[in-house]
Amino acid sequence: MSDTERLSVVYELRLPADLAPTAAEDAARAVAVEQSVEMPVEAIRDRHVRDHVVGRLEDLTPLGVDGATRRWSAVISLATSTVGEDPVQLLNMLAGNVSLHDHVRLTDLTLPSSLLARFDGPARGLDGLRSLVGIDPVAPRALTCTAIKPQGLAVEDLAAIGEAFALGGVDIVKDDHGIADPDLDTFTVRVRACQDAVERANRVTGGTTRYAPNLIGPPDVLRRKAEIALELGVRVVLVAPMLVGVGAFVDLVRSTLAPARAATIGHPAAGGTTAVAPEVLLGSLFRLFGADAVIFPNHGGRFSFTRDRCATIAAAARRPWGEMRPALPTPAGGITPDRVEELVAFYGRDVMLLVGGALLLAGDALTASTADFVSRVHAVRW
Amino acid sequence: MSDTERLSVVYELRLPADLAPTAAEDAARAVAVEQSVEMPVEAIRDRHVRDHVVGRLEDLTPLGVDGATRRWSAVISLATSTVGEDPVQLLNMLAGNVSLHDHVRLTDLTLPSSLLARFDGPARGLDGLRSLVGIDPVAPRALTCTAIKPQGLAVEDLAAIGEAFALGGVDIVKDDHGIADPDLDTFTVRVRACQDAVERANRVTGGTTRYAPNLIGPPDVLRRKAEIALELGVRVVLVAPMLVGVGAFVDLVRSTLAPARAATIGHPAAGGTTAVAPEVLLGSLFRLFGADAVIFPNHGGRFSFTRDRCATIAAAARRPWGEMRPALPTPAGGITPDRVEELVAFYGRDVMLLVGGALLLAGDALTASTADFVSRVHAVRW
Repeated sequence: MSDTERLSVVYELRLPADLAPTAAEDAARAVAVEQSVEMPVEAIRDRHVRDHVVGRLEDLTPLGVDGATRRWSAVISLATSTVGEDPVQLLNMLAGNVSLHDHVRLTDLTLPSSLLARFDGPARGLDGLRSLVGIDPVAPRALTCTAIKPQGLAVEDLAAIGEAFALGGVDIVKDDHGIADPDLDTFTVRVRACQDAVERANRVTGGTTRYAPNLIGPPDVLRRKAEIALELGVRVVLVAPMLVGVGAFVDLVRSTLAPARAATIGHPAAGGTTAVAPEVLLGSLFRLFGADAVIFPNHGGRFSFTRDRCATIAAAARRPWGEMRPALPTPAGGITPDRVEELVAFYGRDVMLLVGGALLLAGDALTASTADFVSRVHAVRW
Repeated sequence: MSDTERLSVVYELRLPADLAPTAAEDAARAVAVEQSVEMPVEAIRDRHVRDHVVGRLEDLTPLGVDGATRRWSAVISLATSTVGEDPVQLLNMLAGNVSLHDHVRLTDLTLPSSLLARFDGPARGLDGLRSLVGIDPVAPRALTCTAIKPQGLAVEDLAAIGEAFALGGVDIVKDDHGIADPDLDTFTVRVRACQDAVERANRVTGGTTRYAPNLIGPPDVLRRKAEIALELGVRVVLVAPMLVGVGAFVDLVRSTLAPARAATIGHPAAGGTTAVAPEVLLGSLFRLFGADAVIFPNHGGRFSFTRDRCATIAAAARRPWGEMRPALPTPAGGITPDRVEELVAFYGRDVMLLVGGALLLAGDALTASTADFVSRVHAVRW
């Protein structure tokens, strides 16, 4: 990592519409300073710091006007040496202090290849997830996913729901991200029951449904949960990077999940930050940090993400990016099975559709509602 | 922790001004469901889950109208049993999914004493920090703090700045939160140099200035950095909970800092979330998770926090709350020494004023500018 190499960040600034261009430039330079040296530049005597470490305003372009506000796009470059290889410090440099400024939002980033190479990205990626659930690589199709809910149910009831889902032939049965466990023993009992239930169903169907337990907790608990799950035969897990912390997330993937060739589904909980647009956080950073699949709120559901935003997240997750494997976009949040054709047409087949509540509404007919969802996905022709 | 005990959360909802009250009630109930079972309630058969685990709308009050939007205050209660004692799961239950909803923001919370008792809060608290810097408990005064900057300087230059600050008699010399280190050896060399510099200055002045290094990194690195710092004689550290993750933060305090009776200053970097108002995040949650002092952007500086918001954060940090020690409010962000009298009058003497850049502007006269700031704080009479 050379001392003069830079990463490039695009921030969208919201400034008063009547602000003079020179004042807008001052505001943009202030962001560059805030995200680097965080002190008056005139008080810096060190030449190296002045020339290389101070954030540099590379470009400033006016965007549209909304009422009394004009949006500006500021391209700011930062010294790669200030990041090192620490995901926590990367987040700090990208969005540490600006997250406290309401008028600044990170909307794009470009990392030099040397920095990119410090991160492993997905351990299995999109194709690796497909192979985990037994999809023929010659005829790839969209993946199906559902969620065991609600939190608070007894273990045998959670396992029964998992079994019914698996009997319906869904690819991945994940835990709801709200399902935590008061201790490791409870976690073990629950995960064993759900994993056994799904394996039992697989023996009936001849399928390869995978159960993905939710891993949550402080770092040591998180790692121990991953080890337990792997011992129980689990090969896909659910983790929310912004809840557990990006440092703990990268550590978990690197130390425990990737060596076992297990896949990680990134959940967006607590991912709504004022500082980083979801396109970048979910589409790029989650992938960079090691998510093989990335859940995000689908358009037209109960969240307000637009079609455009969803398309951008999906594109970011799958685009060629250094040596990194592509991640699997996983739209969710109020998807109903009757939208399968529309959504596969919209996202393409390199997608995993996550349908939860809509299947659970079927009550006793849970396996049938799951099978209907699954058959709709399998029926989409290319 | 009883199975029926509940914690209470206030969410502010932004809804169309012309929405009927019954529709607003539906929107509020949807938040209660989103933050608990996250599925259609009519599909839940389990009586315990329906009666206790589903989030409950306890109150809904219309607030003001801003243009086309009306704000509502929704009081929602959640089952304490869904949290356990995990700070990560607490954050999940408070703000996991709603963080992806633009119209929802957590503005207040009430935790039952059984849940509160699961967290230790500050290891030393406000009074403990005062005693660490040698302030007479019979005549307590406001504390002074400054920051070694900028990132990118050579170790000897950083240490020289620290020494100059300490010679000026400031209570705490912290690292800028942007100062990271590529590896533990670099960290050790840098922290030793700064700690030695401050101790050297203390021998000259007879004072008790404390150096507070910035701890950042993935969980294991974080803990190792804390151990190294403690071995070097450090007794105050700086950590940004939202960067390192609240799980890693609580672990760090509990496993390493609290047993050594070291104090932790919480930095707000990456703390701007759409889901939790800064009053709650910085004033209450940072304290709950173990911050002895809480840095927040002061009003009238380069951040847009209002006087009201700052007063609320300070009040939350210091208020009686279970058995927890009060935390020290630490306003920062463009404070100049000529505001000392105004700010001590505003916050009271249970405050730490953090002045960074304004002192550094003095260049060679750094010790003099620091001494001027310090003497202004010491001169405030009660």
